[in-house]
Amino acid sequence: MALACEVLAIGTELLLGQVVDTNSAWIGERLAEAGISCYYQAKVGDNHDRIVAALHSALGRSDAVICCGGLGPTQDDITREAIAEVMGVGLRRDQAIEAGLRERFRGRDVPVSNYRQADVPEGSTPVLASVGTAPGLICPVGGKVVYAVPGVPSEMREMVGGPVIEDLVARSGEQATVRSRFLRVWGVPESKVAEVVAPRLGALEGGPTTIAFLANVTEGVRVRITARASGPDATAKATAALDAEEAALRELLGGAVGGVDDEGLEVVVGRLLAHAGLRLAVAESMTGGLVSARLTSVPGASRWFAGGVVSYTPQVKRSVLGVGPGPVVTSEAAQEMAAGVRQALGADVAVSLTGVAGPDAQEDQPVGTLFVGLDLQGEVSARKAVLGGGGRQLVRERAATYALDMLRQHLLQAH
Amino acid sequence: MALACEVLAIGTELLLGQVVDTNSAWIGERLAEAGISCYYQAKVGDNHDRIVAALHSALGRSDAVICCGGLGPTQDDITREAIAEVMGVGLRRDQAIEAGLRERFRGRDVPVSNYRQADVPEGSTPVLASVGTAPGLICPVGGKVVYAVPGVPSEMREMVGGPVIEDLVARSGEQATVRSRFLRVWGVPESKVAEVVAPRLGALEGGPTTIAFLANVTEGVRVRITARASGPDATAKATAALDAEEAALRELLGGAVGGVDDEGLEVVVGRLLAHAGLRLAVAESMTGGLVSARLTSVPGASRWFAGGVVSYTPQVKRSVLGVGPGPVVTSEAAQEMAAGVRQALGADVAVSLTGVAGPDAQEDQPVGTLFVGLDLQGEVSARKAVLGGGGRQLVRERAATYALDMLRQHLLQAH
Repeated sequence: MALACEVLAIGTELLLGQVVDTNSAWIGERLAEAGISCYYQAKVGDNHDRIVAALHSALGRSDAVICCGGLGPTQDDITREAIAEVMGVGLRRDQAIEAGLRERFRGRDVPVSNYRQADVPEGSTPVLASVGTAPGLICPVGGKVVYAVPGVPSEMREMVGGPVIEDLVARSGEQATVRSRFLRVWGVPESKVAEVVAPRLGALEGGPTTIAFLANVTEGVRVRITARASGPDATAKATAALDAEEAALRELLGGAVGGVDDEGLEVVVGRLLAHAGLRLAVAESMTGGLVSARLTSVPGASRWFAGGVVSYTPQVKRSVLGVGPGPVVTSEAAQEMAAGVRQALGADVAVSLTGVAGPDAQEDQPVGTLFVGLDLQGEVSARKAVLGGGGRQLVRERAATYALDMLRQHLLQAH
Repeated sequence: MALACEVLAIGTELLLGQVVDTNSAWIGERLAEAGISCYYQAKVGDNHDRIVAALHSALGRSDAVICCGGLGPTQDDITREAIAEVMGVGLRRDQAIEAGLRERFRGRDVPVSNYRQADVPEGSTPVLASVGTAPGLICPVGGKVVYAVPGVPSEMREMVGGPVIEDLVARSGEQATVRSRFLRVWGVPESKVAEVVAPRLGALEGGPTTIAFLANVTEGVRVRITARASGPDATAKATAALDAEEAALRELLGGAVGGVDDEGLEVVVGRLLAHAGLRLAVAESMTGGLVSARLTSVPGASRWFAGGVVSYTPQVKRSVLGVGPGPVVTSEAAQEMAAGVRQALGADVAVSLTGVAGPDAQEDQPVGTLFVGLDLQGEVSARKAVLGGGGRQLVRERAATYALDMLRQHLLQAH
């Protein structure tokens, strides 16, 4: 039986446009992957009667509803009360949630309002969070079900991606599975990736395995393989289909495939450095710390990352990194920065970035100009790039991605 | 009469999460500005019966509906037909739209499917677009109205921002407005802010001004004040109500209010530094460049930000920053890092961070331990914090926010 599940995002800030609801799209994607139909999604404000009415409408059409938001400790968080009304029950104080709150506040007084989070509808099952403080709820309504999950994206993803989808799949009574894998490509535009991969799209047409493309500035191009399978060995069958398709795509894309799934460019660079037994130093100007921050987001980065210098003013470039006099948005300055930071930090390899993030041009160079310097164990080089516009933050993100990919390519060649 | 208008976003790709619906948030913001209430927003796929059902529901609750998407030339663009069914009329071929299509294709053959865009419900008024090819529609249904606008954001914005809002305001016969302002609070948890502000919630109950809370790790807690007013001087009245409520909240929250509206912690810190004529240097260990990256996201940061050192290994802490031998996750090390980076970069003020981001404990200190060092023109101090868990990235974000807020508080006291 194919279940239908709706999504109800709760919060006046969503209706007023102060926050864009990205949760519903993420949930819609997970439902589709799990083979659960989603025909309606709605947003409603922090108003008891309207939440109740929206839940009644949704349960009239579908088998399940995922309510997102309104589970926090403040007076405008009223999802718990609205669901209780739809279930026709009262609230009970949950001992386990209460104990969890006390533990979280470690001896400090729990603000009284936080205890509201321990009040759950009678007959509902709390889903305890490992992140944040808002527990989720599984609430049966007749033969149907309402799930309540927090609006904070990281907490929502943990709950929907785990217990909620599991419960829905169990209710559907079907042993079907959908598995996805991402191949990550850098240094090649999305349209080119699509062109190279076109033969596979044709070969898969009408079958249970599909390919899709996603692209963005920090993540590069992601090629998503999705495989569906059913029956008792559904998971093994889906995994085998993913393996086969990954091999076929790697045949076409070659070295452009830098990583799989959650492996960002920083993970791939770190793995290459660790493998070669090299330690990296970074000198940043226009990116102001973004490259270092991305590299150190990888657990265990200290094995291959020594540190960095953010040389935001020409004085710091000269005094700390030994950059010579004259303009600093140049190939020479980039090379001096790379060599300087490698020496100052006692590293094996260094990458540097100097350029113009905007809003204004600098040293007569337009916004988007970037020079990346490399020092690979004393071998110093630099490359110029002209990044697109789109605002200061986007230019900075693109510059960081460009420099990390350039480093990745050089490390690949060297080893 | 205050009108209520809903938004119905149409497109299967929205439900599948392949495209995030940002249009509804944008429309919601425009409606609020125009003093038009928006209590529900919904998404539905490219399915005739479900679009018709969603329109009937919306018109049962509200005075108007803005339908977004499904006006293109392809077979799955069926908004025109669905609206005609709700109006109880047929489609007519519109001569002006047809002529516009021919002109747009300038002598080339108009693809036959494009002529579908010239078929509009009887009794509707087309709104011709200056961008793209999809015309919008104003469709009266009894005393109510359905607007159809394209899903392409630039085309949607032109039509909603102009003719649609104008038509709605004319129908409301009222000069009403809604204005919002955010007060930004750092260093105080959301539940505590709610507790402190509780008396205002009571005082405002039932009136035209409301308060709500939004919280996240990098943005801190935002207290939103929303004021509604009507009549010829609606805007002035709403602004006065915002001013009065801001004053009342500042009375309760005191120095915890760091900024207004879009001002992030980095903007506030930058303003305080620029005002005092001071230049900042940053030494980062566990945050690995996040603090520098946030500070340099502010345009013109080079006026008050000299640069930073990411001292990710103990060796770099000692060689570049002059940290003494012994453990580095300590108050002493934090102080030495701050003093060292201030000196190395020739800055007036410095902040430093050393701690444990995880996944593993370090020097017997648990994940979440943070020491922040400060050097204010030679006056050196440090403070220890124990940040919550939630994973490496969240701990790092919290640490950066904590250090920036500590710097903000010291700069406030000093000047």
